[in-house]
Amino acid sequence: MATANRNPEIRTDAVNNRWVIISPARSRRPSDFKSKSQSKSDSNPSSNAQPQCPFCAGNEHQCAPEIFRVPEDSTSDWKVRVIENLYPALSRHPEVKSDHEEYCQANGTAGEVTLGGFGFHDVIIESPVHSVHLSDLSPEGVAVVLLAYKKRIEQLCAVDSISYVQVFKNHGASAGASMSHSHSQILALPVVPPTASTRLDSMKEYHNQTGRCSLCDIHTDKFLIDESTHFISIAPFASTFPFEIWIAIDLGGLLKLTLLKLSLQLNDPPYNFMIHTSPLQMTSSQLPYTHWYIQIVPQLSTIGGFEMGTGCYINPVFPEDAAKILREVEVPKKD
Amino acid sequence: MATANRNPEIRTDAVNNRWVIISPARSRRPSDFKSKSQSKSDSNPSSNAQPQCPFCAGNEHQCAPEIFRVPEDSTSDWKVRVIENLYPALSRHPEVKSDHEEYCQANGTAGEVTLGGFGFHDVIIESPVHSVHLSDLSPEGVAVVLLAYKKRIEQLCAVDSISYVQVFKNHGASAGASMSHSHSQILALPVVPPTASTRLDSMKEYHNQTGRCSLCDIHTDKFLIDESTHFISIAPFASTFPFEIWIAIDLGGLLKLTLLKLSLQLNDPPYNFMIHTSPLQMTSSQLPYTHWYIQIVPQLSTIGGFEMGTGCYINPVFPEDAAKILREVEVPKKD
Repeated sequence: MATANRNPEIRTDAVNNRWVIISPARSRRPSDFKSKSQSKSDSNPSSNAQPQCPFCAGNEHQCAPEIFRVPEDSTSDWKVRVIENLYPALSRHPEVKSDHEEYCQANGTAGEVTLGGFGFHDVIIESPVHSVHLSDLSPEGVAVVLLAYKKRIEQLCAVDSISYVQVFKNHGASAGASMSHSHSQILALPVVPPTASTRLDSMKEYHNQTGRCSLCDIHTDKFLIDESTHFISIAPFASTFPFEIWIAIDLGGLLKLTLLKLSLQLNDPPYNFMIHTSPLQMTSSQLPYTHWYIQIVPQLSTIGGFEMGTGCYINPVFPEDAAKILREVEVPKKD
Repeated sequence: MATANRNPEIRTDAVNNRWVIISPARSRRPSDFKSKSQSKSDSNPSSNAQPQCPFCAGNEHQCAPEIFRVPEDSTSDWKVRVIENLYPALSRHPEVKSDHEEYCQANGTAGEVTLGGFGFHDVIIESPVHSVHLSDLSPEGVAVVLLAYKKRIEQLCAVDSISYVQVFKNHGASAGASMSHSHSQILALPVVPPTASTRLDSMKEYHNQTGRCSLCDIHTDKFLIDESTHFISIAPFASTFPFEIWIAIDLGGLLKLTLLKLSLQLNDPPYNFMIHTSPLQMTSSQLPYTHWYIQIVPQLSTIGGFEMGTGCYINPVFPEDAAKILREVEVPKKD
């Protein structure tokens, strides 16, 4: 990487308005970032159906209740299933009350707030086959997963008192996945989380100043990785993590290509992706600056006390270097 | 733990004003949180001086330049050394300029900001002996480390354009420590990081509303772990992580006791601690609500896509349960 003698920089961007330290003195060669763990080996790719895996086709009865499947009209040959999480972080029963409420009323101080933990926590099973990961699917197969997200988000939008929906994927045990069968998750919250409201404020301020959307204004030269007809993947100007990628949302092709490139370049690392949507109660005047995007973060570095303490991240890789490396990955063409 | 049938709660406190989901459905017994890794075994406790460890007494010449040592008047029998980080995240040369500046001036969009990466990144070696960890030191020994922090912070305060100092410790490889010899770090920043400014705003608002300090107002009944003459350790009301602990700052005794209890109860887990100070340019009117405290986070859970995406954490352990468990740890008395 051409960063060895470059000075550190402190950067912020107009989308998130958060500081990040990009520190090349801590940089390594791209090969050093290759993942040591082979997360695919967890999943025993030689076996297509694992008797003990509740997400595999044939084991549907072992799962928490199904919300819907794609395609809907079939009972057996599903491509994607959306189910309830067996261990939900929030309770989907609207009558849920905080056990703490009584205590709080008696003893609570002014600044301590407790809400009952109402919300939804769903799982999207991305394939009926245990050994198939998202980057193995066809672009159309990835599009079906994204359409399932969209449909579930629309259902959750209709629920009163849900304010924000977070779609995310944890790939690999060290990225937080407890099941090796390819899946992603949706959490619907009764509050707008801090990153979403900060992002919205930041994008609004940029729009007020310039009349444009800060996400649409992103440099597409040295930060570009790939582009499809309507969408781009980039290494964001103030990347929080090494090889962090954003995709202005598309339907399948670019997400598949990007995950494949990550896998090829960095030895199939554990990764997380998050879809950054708008809060659900949006006015039409807010639409010009609240585009959705996907943030992909391969797990290549450890979060330490500095990041936990300050909320400010140290990234050893300049995003323009990450973009160049990923732009140039050769993806083998299938016969 | 008595949380198995309790409902999830969404909490926020008046110190940090950030949401956290406390989700007992994901809770395990306290024994399940015991760390699997024995981080002390990394450090080869049978050997007192390791020839390859630059932090060990006798290897001082292998380190980056020393800033000061305690006691100052001795050249060999130091207790604590403060040195420059060999791989600093920021550059201590005030003339550091961003290589990106020219590019930004030519191509930058309104919202993309780059600062030259000026700042200080120091290391505090907490003991001359390789096998000794912070919780092994006497309370007076821990106090010497804290006094070294204080002295270094005072030096950094005198530097123009430094706005915030973050003291932190990463204990164990999975918590981000690259050296097994017991050490902590100080990073001095030219900007006030987001958690500090959010905390300051939150504490100011509480003070405006109540006339009191939100940190001083913390419940000391069910959230209390231990107390010394002037200080307390608590499981904070809206703990972001399982078994997170705060100590309103003292000089040695309570920090040592708390780290010892964590080690005994949770099998010497990797942990991070962070000292939350005030920004350096403070007026006297801000002093009533800007007390320092230490936040200790044992590494017991993984950060996944939800936390990365939202900035909102899911904690499986109610802090009042963590407080009870840690309050009742029996610390063996030395003969």
